[in-house]
Amino acid sequence: MNEIRIIEVKQSVFASNDKRANELRDLLKEKKTFLLNVMSSPGSGKTTTLSLIINRLKEKYRIGVMEADIDSDVDARTISKNTGVDAIQLHTGGMCHLDADMTRQGIESFENWADYDLIILENVGNLVCPAEFDTGAVRNMCILSVPEGDDKPLKYPLMFEVSNFVLINKIDVLDYFDFDIEKCRENIRYRNPMADIFEICAKDGRGIDDVCEYLIKQIEEWRN
Amino acid sequence: MNEIRIIEVKQSVFASNDKRANELRDLLKEKKTFLLNVMSSPGSGKTTTLSLIINRLKEKYRIGVMEADIDSDVDARTISKNTGVDAIQLHTGGMCHLDADMTRQGIESFENWADYDLIILENVGNLVCPAEFDTGAVRNMCILSVPEGDDKPLKYPLMFEVSNFVLINKIDVLDYFDFDIEKCRENIRYRNPMADIFEICAKDGRGIDDVCEYLIKQIEEWRN
Repeated sequence: MNEIRIIEVKQSVFASNDKRANELRDLLKEKKTFLLNVMSSPGSGKTTTLSLIINRLKEKYRIGVMEADIDSDVDARTISKNTGVDAIQLHTGGMCHLDADMTRQGIESFENWADYDLIILENVGNLVCPAEFDTGAVRNMCILSVPEGDDKPLKYPLMFEVSNFVLINKIDVLDYFDFDIEKCRENIRYRNPMADIFEICAKDGRGIDDVCEYLIKQIEEWRN
Repeated sequence: MNEIRIIEVKQSVFASNDKRANELRDLLKEKKTFLLNVMSSPGSGKTTTLSLIINRLKEKYRIGVMEADIDSDVDARTISKNTGVDAIQLHTGGMCHLDADMTRQGIESFENWADYDLIILENVGNLVCPAEFDTGAVRNMCILSVPEGDDKPLKYPLMFEVSNFVLINKIDVLDYFDFDIEKCRENIRYRNPMADIFEICAKDGRGIDDVCEYLIKQIEEWRN
């Protein structure tokens, strides 16, 4: 297992986060690098899901992963161990989200970031604040897990409005929770009629192939 | 079921949140009202757990409940339906937390708040931001549910540092998740050696009596 580098990123002094996000996106487009921003509650399965996705895509694409957390390097270690791709840990200095400039600091801390076809940002586990800041990502992916409840899109509107696609995770435990998957889809679409929705189980891999196929389409579109 | 009132609370213009929190606590002490601040990730079972606690305490204490969310009045409706006690919904205007002044606005929106022995604030579902703001509560309670993983205290240090007691919820699904309860206790105590820890299942009520007994002790101490 590689040594995990920990990068302390600092909140931007730039008022215009949207401008900085667009600048980052332009740069990524120029370098043909796809940036995927992954958001969810704590413990909904971001790291496990990403490990599965990365293992399916790593032969096709060069991949770098940025794990954002307030503390610990648990996730970067896990990604590195599970997939072998380059993973760095970003510490946010107590901040509950990443803005575009913090994301750029992370990206630029890779040795040769422009060599990556795909950079994945695992954002801080939080359904509120990360949704408020455009990171410069090409696509936003949100994971909602069955134990959290089907009403979450009603309570956290912005997260579901800004997510291009949503993975409903832990469908293996549907029987043990009061979770109506059709109601959940309806709640997601109420917030975002354009959202693509996938049902997955990161524990046994169900649904991950469909997500990868979808992601490949998005990445190819961006790079061409 | 009562009509649910929705209160729009606005972030304080006061720089010194700590000062405002202490002032609120002094006022609560004077009125012999205990304010419990409940925090957790989205979907870890705050509302269900509170319904059980309230139903066990409502003969002994006069109780008012404030449900904070960015949008929706799902939780206040649930509390009102499940317990019959007074419940109001606070909308935070997109904010990811409540500060002391927002909490006070909520409390003062009850008709006669000083008549309550116990006011419960269910904070916004979020392991980051709510921990950063002293609401003026007498005690902070945090719920961590089994599906979220035993590593959460490592990733969200402040939440566990500021929580006086932690409920480990959904222990009925321990067999379906990789969750080491001893490791979890160890991680909580690493952040906060003084934290009291309870194992509960809000679905079948396991452990709730112990929590209530503990709460009664805290409330009596505060009121005497």
